[in-house]
Amino acid sequence: MKMLLSDNNSGVHPKILEAIYECNIGHEPSYGNDKYTEKAIKLLKEVFHKDVDAYFVTTGTAANIVGLSGLLAPYEGVVAPDTAHINVDECGALERFGGAKILYVPNRKGKVLPEDVELFVRSTGDEHQVQPKVISISQITELGTAYTVEEIKELANFAHDNNMLLHMDGARIANAVVALDSSFKEMVTDTGVDLLSFGGTKNGMMMGEVIVSFNKDISKNFKYIRKQGMQLVSKMRFISAQFIPYLEDEIWKKNATNSNKMAQYLKEELIKIPNVRVNDETLGNMLFVQIPKEWNQSLQKEYPVYITDEKNNTIRLVTSFDITEEDVDSFIGCIKRVSGKS
Amino acid sequence: MKMLLSDNNSGVHPKILEAIYECNIGHEPSYGNDKYTEKAIKLLKEVFHKDVDAYFVTTGTAANIVGLSGLLAPYEGVVAPDTAHINVDECGALERFGGAKILYVPNRKGKVLPEDVELFVRSTGDEHQVQPKVISISQITELGTAYTVEEIKELANFAHDNNMLLHMDGARIANAVVALDSSFKEMVTDTGVDLLSFGGTKNGMMMGEVIVSFNKDISKNFKYIRKQGMQLVSKMRFISAQFIPYLEDEIWKKNATNSNKMAQYLKEELIKIPNVRVNDETLGNMLFVQIPKEWNQSLQKEYPVYITDEKNNTIRLVTSFDITEEDVDSFIGCIKRVSGKS
Amino acid sequence: MKMLLSDNNSGVHPKILEAIYECNIGHEPSYGNDKYTEKAIKLLKEVFHKDVDAYFVTTGTAANIVGLSGLLAPYEGVVAPDTAHINVDECGALERFGGAKILYVPNRKGKVLPEDVELFVRSTGDEHQVQPKVISISQITELGTAYTVEEIKELANFAHDNNMLLHMDGARIANAVVALDSSFKEMVTDTGVDLLSFGGTKNGMMMGEVIVSFNKDISKNFKYIRKQGMQLVSKMRFISAQFIPYLEDEIWKKNATNSNKMAQYLKEELIKIPNVRVNDETLGNMLFVQIPKEWNQSLQKEYPVYITDEKNNTIRLVTSFDITEEDVDSFIGCIKRVSGKS
Amino acid sequence: MKMLLSDNNSGVHPKILEAIYECNIGHEPSYGNDKYTEKAIKLLKEVFHKDVDAYFVTTGTAANIVGLSGLLAPYEGVVAPDTAHINVDECGALERFGGAKILYVPNRKGKVLPEDVELFVRSTGDEHQVQPKVISISQITELGTAYTVEEIKELANFAHDNNMLLHMDGARIANAVVALDSSFKEMVTDTGVDLLSFGGTKNGMMMGEVIVSFNKDISKNFKYIRKQGMQLVSKMRFISAQFIPYLEDEIWKKNATNSNKMAQYLKEELIKIPNVRVNDETLGNMLFVQIPKEWNQSLQKEYPVYITDEKNNTIRLVTSFDITEEDVDSFIGCIKRVSGKS
Repeated sequence: MKMLLSDNNSGVHPKILEAIYECNIGHEPSYGNDKYTEKAIKLLKEVFHKDVDAYFVTTGTAANIVGLSGLLAPYEGVVAPDTAHINVDECGALERFGGAKILYVPNRKGKVLPEDVELFVRSTGDEHQVQPKVISISQITELGTAYTVEEIKELANFAHDNNMLLHMDGARIANAVVALDSSFKEMVTDTGVDLLSFGGTKNGMMMGEVIVSFNKDISKNFKYIRKQGMQLVSKMRFISAQFIPYLEDEIWKKNATNSNKMAQYLKEELIKIPNVRVNDETLGNMLFVQIPKEWNQSLQKEYPVYITDEKNNTIRLVTSFDITEEDVDSFIGCIKRVSGKS
Repeated sequence: MKMLLSDNNSGVHPKILEAIYECNIGHEPSYGNDKYTEKAIKLLKEVFHKDVDAYFVTTGTAANIVGLSGLLAPYEGVVAPDTAHINVDECGALERFGGAKILYVPNRKGKVLPEDVELFVRSTGDEHQVQPKVISISQITELGTAYTVEEIKELANFAHDNNMLLHMDGARIANAVVALDSSFKEMVTDTGVDLLSFGGTKNGMMMGEVIVSFNKDISKNFKYIRKQGMQLVSKMRFISAQFIPYLEDEIWKKNATNSNKMAQYLKEELIKIPNVRVNDETLGNMLFVQIPKEWNQSLQKEYPVYITDEKNNTIRLVTSFDITEEDVDSFIGCIKRVSGKS
Repeated sequence: MKMLLSDNNSGVHPKILEAIYECNIGHEPSYGNDKYTEKAIKLLKEVFHKDVDAYFVTTGTAANIVGLSGLLAPYEGVVAPDTAHINVDECGALERFGGAKILYVPNRKGKVLPEDVELFVRSTGDEHQVQPKVISISQITELGTAYTVEEIKELANFAHDNNMLLHMDGARIANAVVALDSSFKEMVTDTGVDLLSFGGTKNGMMMGEVIVSFNKDISKNFKYIRKQGMQLVSKMRFISAQFIPYLEDEIWKKNATNSNKMAQYLKEELIKIPNVRVNDETLGNMLFVQIPKEWNQSLQKEYPVYITDEKNNTIRLVTSFDITEEDVDSFIGCIKRVSGKS
Repeated sequence: MKMLLSDNNSGVHPKILEAIYECNIGHEPSYGNDKYTEKAIKLLKEVFHKDVDAYFVTTGTAANIVGLSGLLAPYEGVVAPDTAHINVDECGALERFGGAKILYVPNRKGKVLPEDVELFVRSTGDEHQVQPKVISISQITELGTAYTVEEIKELANFAHDNNMLLHMDGARIANAVVALDSSFKEMVTDTGVDLLSFGGTKNGMMMGEVIVSFNKDISKNFKYIRKQGMQLVSKMRFISAQFIPYLEDEIWKKNATNSNKMAQYLKEELIKIPNVRVNDETLGNMLFVQIPKEWNQSLQKEYPVYITDEKNNTIRLVTSFDITEEDVDSFIGCIKRVSGKS
């Protein structure tokens, strides 16, 4: 049975697994000096249309924290919405490894706006206060919404006008690019994002995370920080080789297209069911769905789900790259059974 | 061509790769709540004959640093030989992530002895000085030597007598167990080691590192530290599943037996060559070999090697699980060619 | 001219200065092993009616951060109102030195309530999230309000019921005790506060800050943390001796009584002036006063003040231990002049 | 009775105390924006003949750690002799607050030489290793020796040639300047020292420590680091005012001249006593004296002393600014009594 709990429950796309299998030939230089890593970086430069710096790591948290710690002195802070993964789902990793503070603000449907950052900009130069240095946004946000290309540009401009940088947590960036019918170039390179956590794990990779820097000045010491961050994988080819089909064969697009489509199909089916309400503002592969509290127990027995809002009894549903219409139908069947019981 | 530069240059044993392939079926709970992780932990308990705690991570540095940071308050220190991987090859990760100090002492052929720790024990209770809390040893050491079972016991006893703990960096522990004709139980569990970085990557795994705790009290908060250490892999089954054949089918033993044997064969062939001197004190899969300086350039062209001691022009050679007699012969042929030229 | 900008602008009470002068006789053991420190600790035990642990430090920030870092593992967090000094006025010191996160919540007139902490308590055991360990309150709060004895008790009970601890930032605790006609024993010891930053600097001392622990188990390693926190003063008698008259001669009470009274007098005079509004909820020695924006420039020329709320043009006024009615009259005269001009 | 245990046992020179007394007039801006701090900085610029940056702090450890943390990224290291105060007497403060590593080497009579640093310089660019960034020397060293002006120049040149900086822990710099008949300008400014912990506490101040930066580029963010380091004293005038007579009236010179002279006198008297050996290489106000072990108990009863080398039963004696010939005679009398008993 396939789960709708998280896109982390899925496995690895066959083409990615094949790439891992194929790079297991003989000996290769370790720590990223191999030909697979070289090629993966070349491909990243191509999809972003920019001579980016790239640092492969093993988890999304590592991509965020190694990258942000490279941008921040410990007396500097990163402004983010309270819902940000770095703020609530990384167990305080930035505070511990970076020593820096997350200046979190009430989210606006998962987002932060320039006006939320202004308050902190005003403290520039005041030694009593953390100095604002980075704005961090998640694309897609943790609430399933997405920043428009225009919104990202505005944040980047605001950041740069105030001697700050823009970081994007792109754990689900492929879903955003597909949902907004955009491209990596248009959404990231051209908007002015300075640093991207480019995530592939949730979209069919095994462990596919890479820190992409659009400004070599800010990342010139990242190699030391990645090593200190315990993320310099010795047999790195097994990480980087995954990116070759992911980018070259556009597995990222195929996978995201499917998961987005399945989320859409799931939504269409869900709204037909009485007493079910689906948040209309999400796009991509996440849905936030309000159901009667009485259904929880029966539902959880068959399909474990996160309750993200206890008050409104809202559950989060996430479709993966490998979800089929049959999988959705099966879940809908379960919901119907559960709703009939209550 | 297979390299003798490091055991990190080798790939993955076919059985391990098969295990990765086989666990890619459908959906599984993420973050280690899957059946492969469960089984791998069960197997670890079996080989160590103890109800150990186990935390899978992605690099050897992560195993060392997440584990040690869990044992140490920032005002406490870990005593280690100056050659220790944690001291010279991890870019200061313990100092940054743990905030704690490495109290390094001149190594004794790669080892530390109880008498080296005594100096620090005398500062117990003095708030001006870092408080000694852990002794860390590498088995096999970075100089290719190994602690005897008896030596480990003495260190464990000394540690426990002084309210300290014993940590073992087991990046090459399989080679040690094979070389000393011992067992994991005898060498680790029965000697009194408190925490082990159990490394498999250098011995034919893809990313196979696990923190093994022999005392659940000391590791009861490790899950938070692993997460903060950016090492909680979402699709963890792909790490843990590797350990199933590694332990169940004794791949660890087969691989280490081969690499040790090839190092022995390499040594035998090397000492036949005039002007070559091989350090007699190593066992396992590492050799430290003195060659005339004039050979370096020609050798490096064919076989990149580390020069570990410039004064004596000593190079380090490491055999991997997949090295064959033909590979050794090929290297010996190269050395002979090089020696003829000079 | 005496300022109303901050109680940090005042100097030292003559009796305190005398104590400093008097302890400058001959040689004394350093680092707190002197007779003045011994006596000051004895006096602290007396005023708190408890066998407390005490650690003298040089700044209020140090009292907060050394103390809190002693209570928190880096994966644990301290819940505090967003207005807390540790959150906005210490340049991220806790994040850097402690590695721990401040889980800040919207303040309720400067306070935090048990229900604000509940959200975090629910994440107990979830390795993705910072584990709540401490509640931190400021008495008097940064907005000039004060917790009642009953409110403190409730917070302490809630904390203890949830395996948490209660910390009090008592930078202005003397003003609170006087304002609420309470005692250190009733307000701190008897309510169940676990750790207190007992501040005297703002109330007539030169550098008089001490971490007071009401539970020796939690503070048993504080001596190392104070040293690591760069706060172990070698000639400590010059800090601790200040506490002798402060406590023995109740300078704390005399000073706080005066500054509170002067704040009251200032308030009475201010509300007589047209277009001036004074926040009614403060007690102690701070006032938050709304004035017309046009007055700012002229006022700042004579009396520099902090504008704490730009939207409502609210300024903060603070009376010190040495403020007299004449000083207040002089300020009122200035305000009147300024108001006449506009 | 005056002690010879440490120069921290002495009190405060009357002129310094007077300066503290005199600055306690009315209100002054806090956090260093006062006229005393302004004047003290002006005087520092004069004695160093350079437009230095200066940051007052409360302990010598704070001067070292706030300063060094400002120079070092966490993946960088400071090379120092193993005897350095930062290495053995600051409880790991640099590792905790700075996250950086101390690369300590066997001392050469308390010193480090350029050749000791070369080993680390060779690892520049290797991400596995801590990157060497600072050389730290103590003047006078912890073993009572002193670097010549020429030796300091060589270290500074070596540092700058290798993209490193030179830090001086000047806890006893006044004693060094007097002993070598030099000047602050010649010994620090002209040699090329980049950052100095200028210590006055051991030489007759109450809490007189200041970080002096000879290169404003390296210290441009120090104000944030001092605040984060919990060292931004609110009533800073009481620290900085001490430096006014210290520098203006050359109290530093008078005090150091006396303590050096008394150490010399003490030495002359000690060597007359049978079975007493005095280390000949120290200058300044510290002596290392070998006495028969049997004397320890009786001596410690009258004069507590540190035994710095148990094997040779070497004790450390330190003369303070206020030690007189009578005090020395009294100690010599004690030694003679003790020697007679055994």
